[in-house]
Amino acid sequence: MTLEFSLSQNQTKSFTLTSAAHNIELGNWEISNHQLGIEDVLFSIQQICLHGGKQEGSRLIIIKCPDGLTITLSPTRGMNVIEATAPGIRLGWDSPVKEIVNPTFINLQSRNGTGWLEGFNEMMVRCGYEWSGHPFTDTNGELYSLHGKAGNTPASEVIVEIDTLFPYEIKIKGLIKENTFKKTDLRVLTELSYIPGSHSFTLHDRLTNHADYSHPYQIIYHSNFGKPLLEKDAKFIAPVKEISPFNNYAQNGLDNWQTYREPTKDFDEMVFNIIPYTKKDGSTMAALHNKSENKGVSIEFNTKQLPFLTLWKNTDTEKQGYVTGIEPGTNFAYPMTIEREQDRLKKLHAGKTVEFKLRYNALLDRQAVEITKKEITNIQGNQETQINQKPLAQE
Amino acid sequence: MTLEFSLSQNQTKSFTLTSAAHNIELGNWEISNHQLGIEDVLFSIQQICLHGGKQEGSRLIIIKCPDGLTITLSPTRGMNVIEATAPGIRLGWDSPVKEIVNPTFINLQSRNGTGWLEGFNEMMVRCGYEWSGHPFTDTNGELYSLHGKAGNTPASEVIVEIDTLFPYEIKIKGLIKENTFKKTDLRVLTELSYIPGSHSFTLHDRLTNHADYSHPYQIIYHSNFGKPLLEKDAKFIAPVKEISPFNNYAQNGLDNWQTYREPTKDFDEMVFNIIPYTKKDGSTMAALHNKSENKGVSIEFNTKQLPFLTLWKNTDTEKQGYVTGIEPGTNFAYPMTIEREQDRLKKLHAGKTVEFKLRYNALLDRQAVEITKKEITNIQGNQETQINQKPLAQE
Amino acid sequence: MTLEFSLSQNQTKSFTLTSAAHNIELGNWEISNHQLGIEDVLFSIQQICLHGGKQEGSRLIIIKCPDGLTITLSPTRGMNVIEATAPGIRLGWDSPVKEIVNPTFINLQSRNGTGWLEGFNEMMVRCGYEWSGHPFTDTNGELYSLHGKAGNTPASEVIVEIDTLFPYEIKIKGLIKENTFKKTDLRVLTELSYIPGSHSFTLHDRLTNHADYSHPYQIIYHSNFGKPLLEKDAKFIAPVKEISPFNNYAQNGLDNWQTYREPTKDFDEMVFNIIPYTKKDGSTMAALHNKSENKGVSIEFNTKQLPFLTLWKNTDTEKQGYVTGIEPGTNFAYPMTIEREQDRLKKLHAGKTVEFKLRYNALLDRQAVEITKKEITNIQGNQETQINQKPLAQE
Repeated sequence: MTLEFSLSQNQTKSFTLTSAAHNIELGNWEISNHQLGIEDVLFSIQQICLHGGKQEGSRLIIIKCPDGLTITLSPTRGMNVIEATAPGIRLGWDSPVKEIVNPTFINLQSRNGTGWLEGFNEMMVRCGYEWSGHPFTDTNGELYSLHGKAGNTPASEVIVEIDTLFPYEIKIKGLIKENTFKKTDLRVLTELSYIPGSHSFTLHDRLTNHADYSHPYQIIYHSNFGKPLLEKDAKFIAPVKEISPFNNYAQNGLDNWQTYREPTKDFDEMVFNIIPYTKKDGSTMAALHNKSENKGVSIEFNTKQLPFLTLWKNTDTEKQGYVTGIEPGTNFAYPMTIEREQDRLKKLHAGKTVEFKLRYNALLDRQAVEITKKEITNIQGNQETQINQKPLAQE
Repeated sequence: MTLEFSLSQNQTKSFTLTSAAHNIELGNWEISNHQLGIEDVLFSIQQICLHGGKQEGSRLIIIKCPDGLTITLSPTRGMNVIEATAPGIRLGWDSPVKEIVNPTFINLQSRNGTGWLEGFNEMMVRCGYEWSGHPFTDTNGELYSLHGKAGNTPASEVIVEIDTLFPYEIKIKGLIKENTFKKTDLRVLTELSYIPGSHSFTLHDRLTNHADYSHPYQIIYHSNFGKPLLEKDAKFIAPVKEISPFNNYAQNGLDNWQTYREPTKDFDEMVFNIIPYTKKDGSTMAALHNKSENKGVSIEFNTKQLPFLTLWKNTDTEKQGYVTGIEPGTNFAYPMTIEREQDRLKKLHAGKTVEFKLRYNALLDRQAVEITKKEITNIQGNQETQINQKPLAQE
Repeated sequence: MTLEFSLSQNQTKSFTLTSAAHNIELGNWEISNHQLGIEDVLFSIQQICLHGGKQEGSRLIIIKCPDGLTITLSPTRGMNVIEATAPGIRLGWDSPVKEIVNPTFINLQSRNGTGWLEGFNEMMVRCGYEWSGHPFTDTNGELYSLHGKAGNTPASEVIVEIDTLFPYEIKIKGLIKENTFKKTDLRVLTELSYIPGSHSFTLHDRLTNHADYSHPYQIIYHSNFGKPLLEKDAKFIAPVKEISPFNNYAQNGLDNWQTYREPTKDFDEMVFNIIPYTKKDGSTMAALHNKSENKGVSIEFNTKQLPFLTLWKNTDTEKQGYVTGIEPGTNFAYPMTIEREQDRLKKLHAGKTVEFKLRYNALLDRQAVEITKKEITNIQGNQETQINQKPLAQE
C-alpha cells in the first residue's frame, strides 16, 4: 500500500484526516486560519463524526468561510458534496432523506436496484465509475444498481491541504476505490478546491484504471439544486445543440424545457438529454437562475471530458423533493446496455487516467446572473438548438 | 432537521441518548432513582453499547426495577423489545440467534427475502411500516423482504423521560424513519412507558406520513413468548370471532388451536388468522398462560387500530426456537399483494398520523391469570367462534 | 449465553480480546514475551483496529516472531489468515483488493452472488460452512452466494492463549457463528496455533451443529499463494490419485497441471479437481515450490476430514492477481447442487462436531523443499495418477 498522493509543496500545509494505507482516522478535527498564521481571511475546516439513526459512523467535512461559502462534503459517501451555502443562497436541496446515510445501512441492490434512493440528498453525487445510470439486469441475471457505487463508497484516503500563501487555496482530496478481484481496479482521486472568500469551488477528479485490462467507465456528476434557486419560472440556461426527452413522459415537457414549474403534485420528473455547444476548447457552461434573475448557480465543464448533459426536472412537491439536476456526464442516464448500444460508453485502458473538472459558481446577485447569461449566449451564438421529439431510447 | 419530540413538562426529567438531528450519542449511560431524588421505588435505566460478532455497534436500553420488571429494548433494532422479566417469569424466548444483531450485518434481501431471520430473537419486533408479512416479488421483479424494514432500522432519536412525581412513569421514546427519495417518508415515534413496580408496560406508537402523497402501510406487532409460559398444554385465550388457518398445514391444527404442544420435532409452525371480538370501544385482549394457570402474559390492544390478530405456534424443539407469537396487526402475515387483494391493506394520507397502543401484562400468579381469563370470557360473552377450515389465501 | 471455550490450564495465559457473550472488545492491544516472563524467545501479539475506506471497523491480530513467522489474521473476516511472512518468503498474495474489508461494506448477493470478490485478498479464507463453492440459484429462486458466509462473518469470541512453558505455544481462538432462525445453528471454534521460532502454523477448527436437525455443510480452506513462491515454472506437487479439469477451459491445461506459467494476460484461471493419495491414516500433503526449489509452502491435511483438493491456477497478470490456490475441502468448488448430486455433500447431525486440521509449513530453503518433495513422493509411491479429461460437471 503506497501513499497515493504526491508530496505537497512547502508552502502547503497538509493534514491526513483518513488513511487506509496508514491506518489513520482523525475523527472530530478542526483547523482555522489563525492556527495556520493566516490573518487576512477567516475560514475554518472541520471534520465531524455523525451519530444517530443511519448516519451513525458517517463523517462530514465542512469548510466555513464567513465571507464566502460554507461547503459541506461527506468522505463516507464518496466525497459527495452535501451543500454549499452563502447568506441568501444555497446550492443544495431538501430531500426526504435528512440523514447523511452511512453506506453500511444501504443495500444498493434492494428496491429493484434503486436502494441508492435511501441515501440520496446531496448537492453533488458521483454516479459511477464502474457504471452509472438507471438499473438493469444483464443477460446473466446480474443487477446493476442505480448510479453505481462510488457515491456510497467511503474514501480510503482524505487529505486537507491549505496553501499558506495568498489566495490560501484549500483542497480536500479523497481516494475512492472501486476494486474487486477479477473485476475492476478503478481509483478516483477526488479534489475539491476552494479559495476562501470566493463564491465558487472546483472539482477535479482523476480516474485511473490500475488494472491490466481496459474497462468501461461512466460518470455523471449529479448536481442538484432546490430552493431558493428553483421556483416557478426559474430558468435553466445552457448553450444547447441538441435536446431530446429521456422518455415519452418528458416529451410532454419539451415545449417548456427551459423553465420550471412551481412545486407540482404528481409531476414526478422529466429528464432531458442535452448535447451542449462549447467554446473551441470544449469548455461550456450550464446554469440555473431564479425568476428574478438575482440568484443562481452555474457549472462550468468541458465536453472533451463530459460530453453529455442530463437535465433533471423533479418539480414535484417540496416534501417529495423539489429539485432540479444539472448533470454533466460521460453518458446519459439510460442503463449501461443502452449507452453501449448507442456508443456513449467510454473505455479506460490499462494504466490510463482520465480527468474531470467542474467549476460550480454561486451567483449571488443580478450582475452575476447577467454575466453568466451573456457567457452562455456567447457560446450559443447564432447556432440553432435542435429539438428532437423522440426519446433516444425506450427503457 | 427539527426536534421531533414535544417539550416535556417540568416535572419530567428528559435525557437525549441519541439524536441524529443534534448529533448526539451518549454511549454507555446510566441513571438510577437516587440520582433523580426518588427514594420510594428502586429503578435504574442504562444504555449499553454491545461488542463482538454481529452485535458490534448495537445498543441496548435496560430498565431495571427489582420490584417490577426488567425490560430490555434495542434502539439499534427499531426500538424492538428484547425481553421483559421478573423473578419466575420471562416475556421473551430463546432463538438460535443469540446476539443483538446490528442491521449493518443483515441483508434483508438475502435468503429469498428472509434475511430478517438472521437477527430475529426479540419479544416484540415491529414488522412494518412500508410493508410487512411474508416476502414476495412484485410484477416488476422487486423483492419485498419478510416483515419490512422497521425492525432493522436504528433509531434516529432516543429519549428517556422520567416523571419525578409518583408514580414515576418512565418513557423510552424513539424515532424510526422509513424515508426514501421518491418512495416514502414514514416516521414512527415509538414510546415504551413503564411505571416502576408494576408488571405491565405499554407501547404507544405514532406513525406519521410526512410525505405529500398517501402511502399504504402495514404493521404487525410480532410478540413472542417461550418458556416458562409456553409448555405442553399451555393455552392461548382470546375472544375470537373468526379463526382460519394460514395455510393447509395449519388446517391440521385447527382442532387444538387453543392449546400448545410440547417441543415437537418436525412440527415447524402453524399460523392462524384471528378476528377478535371486542368491547364496544374496540378494546380487546389476547393472552397466553401455562398449564398450571399461574403464569402468563396478556396483550391489550384495540381493533380500531389493530383489527387483526395472528397466532403463530412455533412449537418445534427448544433449540429450533420453541415459541408462540401473539401478533396484533393492521393485517395478516400474507404477502402485501394478498393483503391488498383481500382489502386489509391500510392507506395513510399525506400528513396524517395513526396510533397504535398495546399493553403487555406479565401475569405472575394464579389470580392474575384468573382475572385475565374472566376478562376475555366477558368480552366473548355468548358470542360464537366461527372456525373456517379454509385458509384465506394460498401463497 | 455461555462461555464456549474450555478453561485453560494454569500454565496458559489467556486473554479475551472479543466476546459477544461477555460484551468485551479490547480494541488496540499488545503483549510481548517479556510481559509474560518469557525471555528465551522473542514474540509479540497485537490487535489493531483499522480505519479508512472499507476497512473502517476491521481488526487484525498479528503474531510477530522475528526468528520465525509474522502471521496476520482478521477476526472481523472470519478469523481468516491474511498472510504469514518470514524474511525472503511470504505466504499470501497481492489482490487488487488492498483493504481488510469490513463485512458491513460487502453485499455477498451483489454481482450475481459474487460480492465476496470485493473483499477477497487473504492467504486463507474459510469458504463455508452453510454452503461453499460457486454461486447458484435454487429452484425457489434463492441465490446462494460464492463461497458462503463464514469468511465474511465477524468472530463472536476471540481469545489469545499463550503457554508460558516451553515451547510457548500461541493459540488464537475464534468463534464464528452461522445461526439463523429456522435455518441453521452452525458454530465453528477456530484455532490457529503457532510455536514461536517455527516456520509452521496449524489450523484446528471444530464445527458443531448446535441445532436439533442435521444440516448439510461444506468447507473449502481456500489457501492462496503468490510471489515469491509462484513464478514461471514454479511447481505444484501432491500425491495425486485422480485429477480432472473443473471445466472445459481447464481441460486445456491438463498437460501442464503441475507447473505454472508466468503472469499471463487473458489467462484468467484454470481449476482442477484432485483426489489425493494418503498415508494409511488418511494424512496427506500438497505443496508449491518456486522454480529454484528453494522456497515453498506445504499444507498437511487429512482426507478423512477434507477428502477433496481443489487446485486453482490464477496465473493472470500481477495486477489482476497472480495467485494459486491449494484448497483442501469437504467438496469441490461446484455449486452445492452439483456437489449434492455427485454425492460430495456432507451432513452434520444434530449436536455433532467435525474437526478440520491443517498445517501450513513455510519452506525456507532447498532442504525444506527437498524433504517435502520426498514426503510427497513417498505417499505417491508407485501408484498411478489417473488423469480424467472430462470435467466432473458442467456448471
